[in-house]
Amino acid sequence: MTYCLGIRVDEGLVMLADTRTNAGVDHIARYGKMFTWERPGEWAVCICTAGNLSITQGVVNALNEGVASGGRLCPSLFDASGMYAVAELVGEQMRRLEALHGPTLARAGVSAGASMLIAGQKAGERHRLFQLYDAGNFIEADEDTPYLQIGEFKYGKPILDRVLTHASEIPDAMKAAFLSMDSTIRSNLSVAAPLDLAVIRADALAFETRRRVWEDDPGLVAISKGWSRALFEAFRALPPVG
Amino acid sequence: MTYCLGIRVDEGLVMLADTRTNAGVDHIARYGKMFTWERPGEWAVCICTAGNLSITQGVVNALNEGVASGGRLCPSLFDASGMYAVAELVGEQMRRLEALHGPTLARAGVSAGASMLIAGQKAGERHRLFQLYDAGNFIEADEDTPYLQIGEFKYGKPILDRVLTHASEIPDAMKAAFLSMDSTIRSNLSVAAPLDLAVIRADALAFETRRRVWEDDPGLVAISKGWSRALFEAFRALPPVG
Repeated sequence: MTYCLGIRVDEGLVMLADTRTNAGVDHIARYGKMFTWERPGEWAVCICTAGNLSITQGVVNALNEGVASGGRLCPSLFDASGMYAVAELVGEQMRRLEALHGPTLARAGVSAGASMLIAGQKAGERHRLFQLYDAGNFIEADEDTPYLQIGEFKYGKPILDRVLTHASEIPDAMKAAFLSMDSTIRSNLSVAAPLDLAVIRADALAFETRRRVWEDDPGLVAISKGWSRALFEAFRALPPVG
Repeated sequence: MTYCLGIRVDEGLVMLADTRTNAGVDHIARYGKMFTWERPGEWAVCICTAGNLSITQGVVNALNEGVASGGRLCPSLFDASGMYAVAELVGEQMRRLEALHGPTLARAGVSAGASMLIAGQKAGERHRLFQLYDAGNFIEADEDTPYLQIGEFKYGKPILDRVLTHASEIPDAMKAAFLSMDSTIRSNLSVAAPLDLAVIRADALAFETRRRVWEDDPGLVAISKGWSRALFEAFRALPPVG
């Protein structure tokens, strides 16, 4: 399982992904699910993936080949007219991989389902966040819906609904993302740290943060413990219900 | 959709159920999903249902006929040797209804899936809580797992994992139940008040509480607003994460 979260606030983009994959309970592995491409001053793009790993790795491989070959082997996302066109390009690759592997996987009774979060900004455009489905279609976050989730999304949704708006500042968006992930990790064993974190501030056209956050990261531990304590105290302080 | 929650703590049993059912977004109705049987001093039994309404209503109808006919039309749960035997009786009825309607429903592409929470106590036994699956099999809550959920359970699970233990007192179990339901109602439109609440204190062998809680219930509103405010303040007070 997987949990990836993308937040788009006025100030920028915050992306957070876990790194656990599993095929059954006895085949657990760690795979990065966050991929970034950057051309400072022009482009910053972050993609997070969930679902069938062979499909999502195939898509990411094609995107890497496109960039590395300057668009010769596959269209390069750096040649796209903007983030919407990047999402279209990723969707095309998703459809190609689904068509290639879907029928065989279906016969084997394995889901080819996959989904992605695509975030970033091109110079001259606003920063944007999309969620791509396995059919290659996609939706975009807007002011009313400042976050998108893929994978095991339910446990971590209530906290986002309570504290996030498009006007939230980046540090608050990061806090909300970590709390959402913390709730998910506590409730689903197949979602686990280390986490991958990316922050793209609006109009910076570069990554402000792109790092791996380990289980024992002081910031992660502090927010996790602090939140547990705060929730417990808030719970105690509530009046009894009749 | 449905969300029902059963909590078993040392002090007793707390059951909470929503009342919304839907078949698509334009066919929304209110149905009680909590059913109770009581023989003060001998028995207090509470059942909450989720899933295919024709199946669950069929099971409840059989249980009611059993009690009303003194076991003539169907075994009466008041004749059961204890709560485990009550769960077995409910399971038998579940299997009967599944066998009756399952194949036809499957041909119509409709799920016959259903599940139930069965809580209560018989004189001379401890109080017990079971979760019954559509195959008629069931599991029991114990000291390590003081709660069981059916229906749309994920949104309301994190808060339970944080604050509940088997040693929690009844008022705290009630608070936790309402907060769990509040998170679910906020995140899923197809779960909605009014709610049905039942409390069976250990060894009371009668319902301490069995009432409908409406949207505008002062206690429900107070805890919902109080929790929102407390979470928001706790969120603000947390340190930023790197």
